[in-house]
Amino acid sequence: MNYNELVNQIKTKQSFLCVGLDSDKRKLPKHLFETNDPIFEFNKAIINNTAKYTVAYKPNIAFYESEGPKGWISLQKTVDYIRTYFPEIFIIADAKRGDIGNTSKLYARAFFENMDVDAITVAPYMGEDSVSPFLDYDNKWVILLALTSNKGADDFQYHNDNGKALFETVLEKSQQWAGKEQMMYVVGATRSEMLQDIRKIVPDHFLLVPGVGAQGGSLQEVATYGINKNCGLLVNSSRGIIFADSSENFAHIAGIKAQKMQKEMAKLLELNS
Amino acid sequence: MNYNELVNQIKTKQSFLCVGLDSDKRKLPKHLFETNDPIFEFNKAIINNTAKYTVAYKPNIAFYESEGPKGWISLQKTVDYIRTYFPEIFIIADAKRGDIGNTSKLYARAFFENMDVDAITVAPYMGEDSVSPFLDYDNKWVILLALTSNKGADDFQYHNDNGKALFETVLEKSQQWAGKEQMMYVVGATRSEMLQDIRKIVPDHFLLVPGVGAQGGSLQEVATYGINKNCGLLVNSSRGIIFADSSENFAHIAGIKAQKMQKEMAKLLELNS
Repeated sequence: MNYNELVNQIKTKQSFLCVGLDSDKRKLPKHLFETNDPIFEFNKAIINNTAKYTVAYKPNIAFYESEGPKGWISLQKTVDYIRTYFPEIFIIADAKRGDIGNTSKLYARAFFENMDVDAITVAPYMGEDSVSPFLDYDNKWVILLALTSNKGADDFQYHNDNGKALFETVLEKSQQWAGKEQMMYVVGATRSEMLQDIRKIVPDHFLLVPGVGAQGGSLQEVATYGINKNCGLLVNSSRGIIFADSSENFAHIAGIKAQKMQKEMAKLLELNS
Repeated sequence: MNYNELVNQIKTKQSFLCVGLDSDKRKLPKHLFETNDPIFEFNKAIINNTAKYTVAYKPNIAFYESEGPKGWISLQKTVDYIRTYFPEIFIIADAKRGDIGNTSKLYARAFFENMDVDAITVAPYMGEDSVSPFLDYDNKWVILLALTSNKGADDFQYHNDNGKALFETVLEKSQQWAGKEQMMYVVGATRSEMLQDIRKIVPDHFLLVPGVGAQGGSLQEVATYGINKNCGLLVNSSRGIIFADSSENFAHIAGIKAQKMQKEMAKLLELNS
């Protein structure tokens, strides 16, 4: 998917919601274990009930990888399902990969050729040649970790070189590798006070913002400080939507939660238009 | 495997060789494609011919992940094969994972419970809570990226905070998370001139050193600057051993290459004892 298609989807749906498909097998509703592939059945029901309010899905790969080869099959089926029934939706593999160039190429093949997602999250520590193989694909995106939502972000991401924090250097330097059509950045909602400064460095790029909800970030603050003229935000919610309910009614409740966020987002888009 | 067992294996085999099982399907000898699982058959032959000279195997996960669910099965079979026939050998999943705490837990489960490797490489960018879930397992190790062998290492790893490069901060801070019994560091052989300084910060830890051979690093320099009283080195070679020959004789040639490195290592261990 290209930049304009993503922006148009946001305008059409009046939403910049990304639903995190962190489908931890131990947390799935009990009745799904009567099926052959509980993770896929869970995802399918969540997708059917939230797609209307959602512009992106973001499976975190750890939840699939931890189930072995079967987990990878559930993931592939999930991506295929979205592609078939909701082809307008942006798919992010939240994989946080990154290796030396000739090895990152293989990760790019895994996610962009075998699996055909739109974007992958990448850790920046190993620098340009660990990132650039993912940029060799037209209309595919890298979402680079900049300032993450977790406590450990304080350990290295603020490492200060002449007044410049590491995450700021990551934002600056990586703009030489790709523009706003192929690169996004992860900025945690728990750091929303930093969004104003971040927008000075990357005014036009999309930011993928996790941490709203379960991790404590505020949607309104994120929008106030982070929104740009094309929205420029994908705000992720995982547990707050997909695990809002654990009864047989779980998918319906997830839909209601997603709709609630979409309505808030529509207001924020209007306020900032 | 614990620290003493690893040190004893090095003494017994007079080797600190780690063979990288970067078993890129496109590079395998043609005749293996007559078998059901060419990657596993390749690994098995390589292992049978190199195990005597080798203290560690390091499959880089990208080469398996890029083959989809089948690749994960080849990887699991490879780990099981080493465990069964060469239980003294240390197994490293070169995965470069790392995510927020509750997600890293799932990666830890994937590699330490489902797969039972001894160690996993982890990217430090997200800090302590992205690393610590891997440390909850007895006798399992984190191998943290410090100074990598690739060109992109220059982009962020030297980010300088008051005279301290980022990789030095990573080395210092992470020592609060685990000691030499559970933590190692990746230091590229292409940066061997830095090993002397690195040994001042982590005198007792094991270092995993990639980049000897195909990437241009020198084994002798690595030993001169990096060896400590318990050796403290695992030097990795991948392509230089496993793809030294592409005929039906490939595994025999790989064995000869591994033996050659083992002999050099025996000399270096003697010189530095």
